[in-house]
Amino acid sequence: MAIRSSEQYRAGLHDGRRVFHRGQQVKDVVEDPELRPAVDHSALCYDLADTHPELAIDVEGGEKFSAFYRIPRSPEDLTHRGRLIEASATAGAGTIVLKEVGSDALFALLRATEGEGAERARAYFDRVRRDDVALAVAQTDVKGDRALPPHRQADPDLYLRVVDEDAETITVRGAKVHTSFAPNADEIVVLPTRAMGPDDRDYALSFAIPVDTPGLTLYVSPYLAGERKNPFDFPVSSQHKMLESLTVFDDVRVPKDQVFLDRVPELAGPLAIAFVDYHRFTAVNYKLPLLDTLIGAAHLVAELNGISRAGHVKDKLTSLIAYAETVRGLGQLAALRSQPGAHGVQQPDPLAVNMAKYTFAHGFHDAVAKVMDLSGGLLVTGPGGEDWDNPEIRPVLEKYFAAAGPAEERLRVLNLIADLTARDFGGYQAVLATHAEGSLEAEKMQIARSYDPSAAIAYARRLARLDG
Amino acid sequence: MAIRSSEQYRAGLHDGRRVFHRGQQVKDVVEDPELRPAVDHSALCYDLADTHPELAIDVEGGEKFSAFYRIPRSPEDLTHRGRLIEASATAGAGTIVLKEVGSDALFALLRATEGEGAERARAYFDRVRRDDVALAVAQTDVKGDRALPPHRQADPDLYLRVVDEDAETITVRGAKVHTSFAPNADEIVVLPTRAMGPDDRDYALSFAIPVDTPGLTLYVSPYLAGERKNPFDFPVSSQHKMLESLTVFDDVRVPKDQVFLDRVPELAGPLAIAFVDYHRFTAVNYKLPLLDTLIGAAHLVAELNGISRAGHVKDKLTSLIAYAETVRGLGQLAALRSQPGAHGVQQPDPLAVNMAKYTFAHGFHDAVAKVMDLSGGLLVTGPGGEDWDNPEIRPVLEKYFAAAGPAEERLRVLNLIADLTARDFGGYQAVLATHAEGSLEAEKMQIARSYDPSAAIAYARRLARLDG
Amino acid sequence: MAIRSSEQYRAGLHDGRRVFHRGQQVKDVVEDPELRPAVDHSALCYDLADTHPELAIDVEGGEKFSAFYRIPRSPEDLTHRGRLIEASATAGAGTIVLKEVGSDALFALLRATEGEGAERARAYFDRVRRDDVALAVAQTDVKGDRALPPHRQADPDLYLRVVDEDAETITVRGAKVHTSFAPNADEIVVLPTRAMGPDDRDYALSFAIPVDTPGLTLYVSPYLAGERKNPFDFPVSSQHKMLESLTVFDDVRVPKDQVFLDRVPELAGPLAIAFVDYHRFTAVNYKLPLLDTLIGAAHLVAELNGISRAGHVKDKLTSLIAYAETVRGLGQLAALRSQPGAHGVQQPDPLAVNMAKYTFAHGFHDAVAKVMDLSGGLLVTGPGGEDWDNPEIRPVLEKYFAAAGPAEERLRVLNLIADLTARDFGGYQAVLATHAEGSLEAEKMQIARSYDPSAAIAYARRLARLDG
Amino acid sequence: MAIRSSEQYRAGLHDGRRVFHRGQQVKDVVEDPELRPAVDHSALCYDLADTHPELAIDVEGGEKFSAFYRIPRSPEDLTHRGRLIEASATAGAGTIVLKEVGSDALFALLRATEGEGAERARAYFDRVRRDDVALAVAQTDVKGDRALPPHRQADPDLYLRVVDEDAETITVRGAKVHTSFAPNADEIVVLPTRAMGPDDRDYALSFAIPVDTPGLTLYVSPYLAGERKNPFDFPVSSQHKMLESLTVFDDVRVPKDQVFLDRVPELAGPLAIAFVDYHRFTAVNYKLPLLDTLIGAAHLVAELNGISRAGHVKDKLTSLIAYAETVRGLGQLAALRSQPGAHGVQQPDPLAVNMAKYTFAHGFHDAVAKVMDLSGGLLVTGPGGEDWDNPEIRPVLEKYFAAAGPAEERLRVLNLIADLTARDFGGYQAVLATHAEGSLEAEKMQIARSYDPSAAIAYARRLARLDG
Repeated sequence: MAIRSSEQYRAGLHDGRRVFHRGQQVKDVVEDPELRPAVDHSALCYDLADTHPELAIDVEGGEKFSAFYRIPRSPEDLTHRGRLIEASATAGAGTIVLKEVGSDALFALLRATEGEGAERARAYFDRVRRDDVALAVAQTDVKGDRALPPHRQADPDLYLRVVDEDAETITVRGAKVHTSFAPNADEIVVLPTRAMGPDDRDYALSFAIPVDTPGLTLYVSPYLAGERKNPFDFPVSSQHKMLESLTVFDDVRVPKDQVFLDRVPELAGPLAIAFVDYHRFTAVNYKLPLLDTLIGAAHLVAELNGISRAGHVKDKLTSLIAYAETVRGLGQLAALRSQPGAHGVQQPDPLAVNMAKYTFAHGFHDAVAKVMDLSGGLLVTGPGGEDWDNPEIRPVLEKYFAAAGPAEERLRVLNLIADLTARDFGGYQAVLATHAEGSLEAEKMQIARSYDPSAAIAYARRLARLDG
Repeated sequence: MAIRSSEQYRAGLHDGRRVFHRGQQVKDVVEDPELRPAVDHSALCYDLADTHPELAIDVEGGEKFSAFYRIPRSPEDLTHRGRLIEASATAGAGTIVLKEVGSDALFALLRATEGEGAERARAYFDRVRRDDVALAVAQTDVKGDRALPPHRQADPDLYLRVVDEDAETITVRGAKVHTSFAPNADEIVVLPTRAMGPDDRDYALSFAIPVDTPGLTLYVSPYLAGERKNPFDFPVSSQHKMLESLTVFDDVRVPKDQVFLDRVPELAGPLAIAFVDYHRFTAVNYKLPLLDTLIGAAHLVAELNGISRAGHVKDKLTSLIAYAETVRGLGQLAALRSQPGAHGVQQPDPLAVNMAKYTFAHGFHDAVAKVMDLSGGLLVTGPGGEDWDNPEIRPVLEKYFAAAGPAEERLRVLNLIADLTARDFGGYQAVLATHAEGSLEAEKMQIARSYDPSAAIAYARRLARLDG
Repeated sequence: MAIRSSEQYRAGLHDGRRVFHRGQQVKDVVEDPELRPAVDHSALCYDLADTHPELAIDVEGGEKFSAFYRIPRSPEDLTHRGRLIEASATAGAGTIVLKEVGSDALFALLRATEGEGAERARAYFDRVRRDDVALAVAQTDVKGDRALPPHRQADPDLYLRVVDEDAETITVRGAKVHTSFAPNADEIVVLPTRAMGPDDRDYALSFAIPVDTPGLTLYVSPYLAGERKNPFDFPVSSQHKMLESLTVFDDVRVPKDQVFLDRVPELAGPLAIAFVDYHRFTAVNYKLPLLDTLIGAAHLVAELNGISRAGHVKDKLTSLIAYAETVRGLGQLAALRSQPGAHGVQQPDPLAVNMAKYTFAHGFHDAVAKVMDLSGGLLVTGPGGEDWDNPEIRPVLEKYFAAAGPAEERLRVLNLIADLTARDFGGYQAVLATHAEGSLEAEKMQIARSYDPSAAIAYARRLARLDG
Repeated sequence: MAIRSSEQYRAGLHDGRRVFHRGQQVKDVVEDPELRPAVDHSALCYDLADTHPELAIDVEGGEKFSAFYRIPRSPEDLTHRGRLIEASATAGAGTIVLKEVGSDALFALLRATEGEGAERARAYFDRVRRDDVALAVAQTDVKGDRALPPHRQADPDLYLRVVDEDAETITVRGAKVHTSFAPNADEIVVLPTRAMGPDDRDYALSFAIPVDTPGLTLYVSPYLAGERKNPFDFPVSSQHKMLESLTVFDDVRVPKDQVFLDRVPELAGPLAIAFVDYHRFTAVNYKLPLLDTLIGAAHLVAELNGISRAGHVKDKLTSLIAYAETVRGLGQLAALRSQPGAHGVQQPDPLAVNMAKYTFAHGFHDAVAKVMDLSGGLLVTGPGGEDWDNPEIRPVLEKYFAAAGPAEERLRVLNLIADLTARDFGGYQAVLATHAEGSLEAEKMQIARSYDPSAAIAYARRLARLDG
């Protein structure tokens, strides 16, 4: 099979999966009017094989494969992957599409598992690649009290754990949160969320299961639900959205040949971090179209408002450019400086990738504030699509919202900015900037860990005349 | 009459006013299900006479008056006004209620008009105070190309102007934007938006008219419209909202005895600035409950997440405190340092008030980012009220969202934070922070204008040994 | 005696004090050419009785006293003290003069000691005030390993402690650092540097001794030593400087009637903090002339360079104003919000005073960077006084350094800025901004401690619908 | 000759050059005790051929050349140049050494001159490379009023200009400032400082002359002059320094075959910018050892003070790492993304190089503030080398300055930090960070110019549904 079409992808989602949304069980995620935009958004990564075959298709042994599943072996492979991710996010209006996260998990499994687990991971990878499977990744446990390790939580289920075992299966219980794409993926890959000690043995788990596995229930967040149909008001979020779920494992039986990490606590941390490296590399590439949109919209709105020659406006535009291009530059560097990891799987430079992600996350709110500043209060006091569609009202709007350009251009650009910064979708993007693919604090910790200060210390000691 | 009840206020809104919302004419703003929450929010400032009589009621000559209409004559008066505004915003969950803006405009008119205009302003003030009238203020013109003055715009109507005149009236045409409260006020006070030159004579206008005056049409922004009923999801915005309109004057005839500035361009700037002084003083006081909420919610969510002892968490909490309390402190100082202005109307210290407002506006986005950081991704991936209300789902949520406190507390606090920072209402607050009551750039300009550098320059010259 | 002249002050410094500077014992601090500028700088606070009698002199019972020693009993007293400190720092070019710190210590002793200690403190205060004594304050111990309390240090002498006792005296050993003014004060007041536990009993000490007490040795820091005579090059630091010493107590015997805290560990913390409150209030007032100088010099250099109309220049000037005036405003507020403390000694509002100090310290480096930016590279590549004094070179400089004003004005202003920001004295000011009167981290801790979050938390809970 | 030794370099400086320092003519720059450290510092780039031959020597046609003079033809060449510059700055303790700036000017001349000027530039380059000549570069004119172009200044000499001409020579008059290395270079290359219009024709000049050319006088800035001998106090600045001069051309006759740009105003801007590209690339590479020193010293001082486990300390260390490594990364990217320019001379990516330089300059003051914060007040109140050298005092210092490490280590590290941040040398570095190789504002302008927003604008228009 190897490359599926978006129709094949959609067809694969009709199964017995147990999905709840807004307090109701969903009959069919593909047909549900509120979930469908998310399915369509994810389907873009299947369409990419048609629209960008040079980027999206690998040919090997005469067979075609999705380039998302190309195991990186060199800086060039990672550079290519960066471009592929950026292209898919360009189609996705700056929001991650689907295959990125699953392939990030696969590379981590290929690099950071050992022994039998590694063999199973390799077999799993081969099947996923061959069948062009859509994967979600469930990493973050619900975690309970952040100050306590898994085995010391009041309720032992607050991290996912093994509760039973037989010859063929392990049985797991617990819940993961922030599971992106789970309702519209074929299978879910489970990864550990943190380093673990010997007492956390039952929690040191990684495996994969189909979404319709008995005992698995997805509670989809209602965020971004509700009518959002008029593209005048919501030019981006009427077309693009992701689904996140609380993913509950209620004594789910997992076949052992799908288990990649089976109670090996010492590998939990390395596997978690290996995923994070790839996933932050994904993040800094898929965010680029979002940042480009901010730059482009800021230039447009400044021009349309008639303020583009003011000193402070130029200063804000330059600062947006410097911000976005620093993220892009550090992301490129993460590929160029990458090194081969275990099993020959290339590893993005962790210092560069974490600095890129940190720069993105740390600067996002200020960038948004600058774009709001250039836009003016109309972002939240302007007219809506229902006004625009009324032929008696539209001429009033055309007359009075004309500025240094026609009212329609100005209102559409303002609504683009509002959608991305000042409405539910904007809030979603702002929270993602802070927390998705690791929080700011997690990135700072990785920057410190990825940097070896010994050369700098030795140099400072020499200049201080302490040595030699 | 002097003090009206909130029922009397609501009753006064049933008239022939021409209001459009979401492309349709509104039959009755009090009964309309989407506009009603805004009416109820504004009505809080009438309720204040019951809940906080010591703050909200003035007694003079045996008669009671709304303390919002007390003309400030001393630092104590302004300090009292600050407390009154903060109390009304506390009732209003950090959003301005209603009477603040109208009284700001009245004080400006009393201080900055002259001659016959001043007499009319005084008479108007007396009537408003006596009848406890609810006023909206229309200041910001649609403005067209920001780089051009009123008389040089492509369309001469892009600033409100006089197009005709007879013995009794002037006729005006044009449009104002961002007119808060217009749909649910009794009357609208019009103020000029900027300094004007001799060629802008026809644009140098200030007057007041009832909202149902013929020729006046309000196009209410649909922002924050739509279902927002469940207080689990929207603890604040299900109860509190403001309305802003595009306010179109289609050859509206204004009786001359209601005209306070009639084509006197040299007074346009002083009147605009006089309003701004009072209105920014209002702003820094009504924002305090919003900032307190951020501090309180940040403490709560850190505690409930189990992270309150981490160094970076303490640092963020302290930074929120320092931010909010600097705004509060500078706001208090604006009253304490106030000086008598023309006609004995007290003027808040413009340097302190603009620094307070700038500090608020400049720091708001970063404060929001910090609160988001402490909250975690659940802000946008958590469950909703419809999930919570389902008796089969709620136990799952209670089990898995418990952390260092019960799930319900955590989810409710997270939803409060999301409502204020990551949803439409949060975007609305963020844009208001940047633009309402003057933009960041406007505040910087006023800081520079309010500061006399001559003493600092003389001292620097002396230390540089250039003089004496 | 009550008010001494600066000559009487200088005369009082001729005694047997043991002072080392640059590796040599100093014969006479008044005559030493490198220490003399510091003596002259401190003497300014005695001259203040002549130049600003209305501020500097109190009259009580027909006798005159230094107003520095007026015990604050009201907001007005603290406001007056703020003005007095600002005036003395204006004379001192933005550097603290002398009497501020001693009076800060006295107020702390009057407020935070108890029993016999309090009586001795009161008697000591009366004598100091009557004789207009110049006091230094030794608070900061050398501290050894910051992670350990006094009694657990490898060397027990790393905090000052009692090593012996007889009927009349206690004997103390240890060392204090950063002791400002010690070489040119009459007496030294010793305060504890931190909160202490029961095991630190021997370290919980406060007392006063004359500087020439046997066993006491001062090692003065050589910072700012060396030729610095030409006021063309060093317009400020050629005239103004402070001395800091390592103050070693080598088994010094202290008469018990001069001991205010004698091994009472539970009072060590309160006394340390009481001092800090007054001393930070002093700090935010004495820094104001320094900040005014930055503003004034920035305006001058922008004008002289011909760049004052550029947008980014105006923005930088405004930001300097907002910075300085926020410090000034919060400092005033600390007095206006002050409350009576124990024994009726007025206490500056700790939240406001710590926010003022934090705002100063946090913003100082950025303010300096902005002034450097406006100045240009000539700050460190320009000519010197020896060039200027050469009649063949001066015309060359006058020709080529003329800009939008004459070369002499420009060079003198640049040298003022260099002296304050880019030379040894500038580095001294930058380090003082970060560490003197408490570090940034100490101020953040006090902000958090001075703020009671319970009202904000209750309000957030109410809005989150958790209570009532 | 091709590669000279540092002795040959020093020997070459004995000539009739006219150099003034501290108001006196200098007899011999090599022997002058105050200038000698600068000569020794510059000589390090000749020593590099011995210490780092693999980096510093090129072999071509059997002959050795200084690798500083390798014309870049590829990303690899620029990457190599970056390493060479970093190595020389490592020897130079983070301060630029000498040959960097001259070679930057040569590459600019090779790329941006045309016709006869280009031929002369090529011949000049060949000679400089063959003879391993030490070049200074004089670019910045004294400029007078920044708001006026050259030909409109009150004094026509405020930009360097042609005042006469004959068959063999042009005669020039005017002055350049901030001319680094001029007193200790063999020759001076003159470049225009800005874009020029037709009326500025006489100012559009570039040429090279020996330093001892009649009519040329150098007035060396006294900054960093004075006794600075004790390496305990000044571990870096006792060994390393640069000289900057006011470089006056008093009717200097320049042979035409050394003139590369002779009154061609349209090439002035391109040549100025071409130099700036190379010179900012140089800057971001030579600053790296300075940034490494800050990181290393910060780690050391935190450790020695016993505070390295505190949360805020880790945060500050991480922030220093992220800052330095972002500069390094963007600098590397400037080489990796470089493109061939005119005449096949490779051009560093202007966007990356300006972002790297801006990141460095914008972040430097905050980085310094963080290092000061970790160090403590001892930076400016500690003992000096003369104390340390006194055998009676040293034991006192050893006892009382011991902390979580021995006193000597702590004091030496503190003095290293003080030298780099809080003393004259630190001020010099801070001003250089802001202004050398272009100011912050100049870098922001180049970032805006180097970025083509059209793709971002087109994407934003598409998402706003304005096109297609």
